[in-house]
Amino acid sequence: MAIVVQKFGGTSVADAEKIRRAAARAAEAHNQGNQVVVVASARGKQTDQLVADALELNPNPPRREMDMLLSTGEQQTVSLIAMALDQMGRKAISFTGSQIRMLTDDTHSKARIKSIGTDRIRKKLDAGHIVIVAGFQGMDENGNITTLGRGGSDTSAVALAAVLKADVCEIYTDIDGIYTTDPRIFPAAAKMDHISYDEMLELASLGAGIMHSRAIEFGKKFDVKIHVRSSMEDKPGTLISQEMPEMEGILVSGATMQKNLAKIGLIGVDNKPGNAAKIFAHLAGARVIVNDIIQVEISKEKANMSFTVAKSDLADAQKAIDEIKEQVHCQSVFVRDDIAEISVVGVGMRSHYGVANTMFKALAEGKINIDSITTSEIRISCIVDQEQGESALVAVCEAFDLDKPAEKRS
Amino acid sequence: MAIVVQKFGGTSVADAEKIRRAAARAAEAHNQGNQVVVVASARGKQTDQLVADALELNPNPPRREMDMLLSTGEQQTVSLIAMALDQMGRKAISFTGSQIRMLTDDTHSKARIKSIGTDRIRKKLDAGHIVIVAGFQGMDENGNITTLGRGGSDTSAVALAAVLKADVCEIYTDIDGIYTTDPRIFPAAAKMDHISYDEMLELASLGAGIMHSRAIEFGKKFDVKIHVRSSMEDKPGTLISQEMPEMEGILVSGATMQKNLAKIGLIGVDNKPGNAAKIFAHLAGARVIVNDIIQVEISKEKANMSFTVAKSDLADAQKAIDEIKEQVHCQSVFVRDDIAEISVVGVGMRSHYGVANTMFKALAEGKINIDSITTSEIRISCIVDQEQGESALVAVCEAFDLDKPAEKRS
Repeated sequence: MAIVVQKFGGTSVADAEKIRRAAARAAEAHNQGNQVVVVASARGKQTDQLVADALELNPNPPRREMDMLLSTGEQQTVSLIAMALDQMGRKAISFTGSQIRMLTDDTHSKARIKSIGTDRIRKKLDAGHIVIVAGFQGMDENGNITTLGRGGSDTSAVALAAVLKADVCEIYTDIDGIYTTDPRIFPAAAKMDHISYDEMLELASLGAGIMHSRAIEFGKKFDVKIHVRSSMEDKPGTLISQEMPEMEGILVSGATMQKNLAKIGLIGVDNKPGNAAKIFAHLAGARVIVNDIIQVEISKEKANMSFTVAKSDLADAQKAIDEIKEQVHCQSVFVRDDIAEISVVGVGMRSHYGVANTMFKALAEGKINIDSITTSEIRISCIVDQEQGESALVAVCEAFDLDKPAEKRS
Repeated sequence: MAIVVQKFGGTSVADAEKIRRAAARAAEAHNQGNQVVVVASARGKQTDQLVADALELNPNPPRREMDMLLSTGEQQTVSLIAMALDQMGRKAISFTGSQIRMLTDDTHSKARIKSIGTDRIRKKLDAGHIVIVAGFQGMDENGNITTLGRGGSDTSAVALAAVLKADVCEIYTDIDGIYTTDPRIFPAAAKMDHISYDEMLELASLGAGIMHSRAIEFGKKFDVKIHVRSSMEDKPGTLISQEMPEMEGILVSGATMQKNLAKIGLIGVDNKPGNAAKIFAHLAGARVIVNDIIQVEISKEKANMSFTVAKSDLADAQKAIDEIKEQVHCQSVFVRDDIAEISVVGVGMRSHYGVANTMFKALAEGKINIDSITTSEIRISCIVDQEQGESALVAVCEAFDLDKPAEKRS
């Protein structure tokens, strides 16, 4: 019998009406002959309220206690969904992360899943129950409650789908799928039917913000088909899966803009082995996550180096660079926090020339200056002035026909 | 090192300010060289809100799921108290019922405690932590979350005090102790310094409503000193303990009135062995809790029988009596739901005469008609007209000097 995992985020279970709708979805999938596991997040603004309650008592609450507190949000949702299903005449049972032995490490507030028990779930599924599991939470080996951090419920759902060998992990959300770009900036953006894990990873980490990258990495690692779809309408959304041969034909799947970035440049660093390692080890020590790095040799002795960080990490990054700059004989440091990064992503660019060209030409025609360029195998990113970000994204989307379904692009 | 268990009810942790005050109490007891275990209930009206959320989805929610839902209330409180203590620079750790292995049977919504793990608590106490345990909740042997029913947090606290061999179990509440009677009816009521478990059991089951009888039974069974005191002021409250020799001198410790009662009379039941058993077994089968029973022989062949039940059980009780009345050849049934029961309680009446007399005389002088009388070893109860309930209670309180401290009564 096929197993379907359905994940409902906070907005999809925000009130009684929405909980009933989520329960009806699960019942429907069960009617169709599937075994159904539901993974749910905390209701609407519950988590925000709990965080506010905590901060009122302690501006820096211990993470273990914070996990204890926040995990109640999902526990409430899953029991309410079970009650809604019972009211529909269904057999349903809810479990906390601890109860199904969602075992994690002990890094409270951003724990990593180590293993998941399936016995209890399988037993209830085989007995005809719809099983509802609290997302976002687990327990460490001492039985302390842990949480998985941002996007944790997605990760719970995909991980459960993996261990249960589910046919699909459906992610219900308030949008009806993944679009080629942000429709608020490019209203003509087309919905994608299908996207590969790698593309989605590039899009997610670049700020598309629909699913957390950890969940997609999990999906990729364990080959879990992820279906992102609307909790309001019953129509197909976007399927995230392994790369398929036909995807090769699509040059660019999507485009994104990321604004909350800053760029730090180090001018005239000693050009010798080990210096880059020294700098980035020091940044890692300061818990700064570094995005794209560019290094250019300017002489035999000296190189310029630059990298981007989230604006929220800028102060820490600057401090770390101040500490290390003399060791690497850096002549000067500059900072830009008025930038935007425009990226195009597509597995097709692996085997096709001209993608970068099309992008640069579109930006040039839009009179947009490119500060710097970085690429990966399936991504090209340009740093531009922040105030030109929107027009740059629109220019790129038009150049790659991102208003059309993939099969109709030139 | 002495162990103190402190229990804070819902009103004592209703907001951040009160949580801080509860935390400060625990810290203070810790300062005094005690090991401190805090047991807490859900904040203020949280439980009511959760019940409302559940009923909106299912008018008859499965009890297992209800326990799953309601147990989040205490879990939130204990983590918040731990955060407040951390903010005061204290080492503190919170636990759910499951985490300390508060093992119960599987009667969801009114589970009975079977055993409690102490290893984890003792380890943390020995390491200098204040340990905060979620009251009201446990788990069955399959790891399902259970709750202990009304007054469950009191029971959790007293049970923990028992297994930890605590010196005292302090019950913090919004009153400053136990009074000789309800001060809303008899404003001059005196606070008791000391009361025995048995007296408190009679008073609790008669509706004094300060502590649930199950917690007091637990205290009696395991000889746990229970100190009921105010969460707002730092002064001694009322100590509930084993009976002590000096208590014998106090004729009447307290008086209560219970109003939500109904009385069912069976007229002309066959006066033969086994008939009473038949009737009350049938009532028990209908899950009706029967309070006082009176039986009077009216002839060699016939007897009249009456008993009181909670008004909420009256419909069930009437139905059960209708089913059984022909079997016992009952000639007619009458029901009164306009009654009140006035009781006086005191271990002193075991060894002193005249208590009943004083009570009846006080009622007679107040022109209050007595419908019926029942007694136990340490209690005398009279059924009176409901509309005379308050004046009956006041008359009795005055007769026994219940406005004076015990040692000053005549």
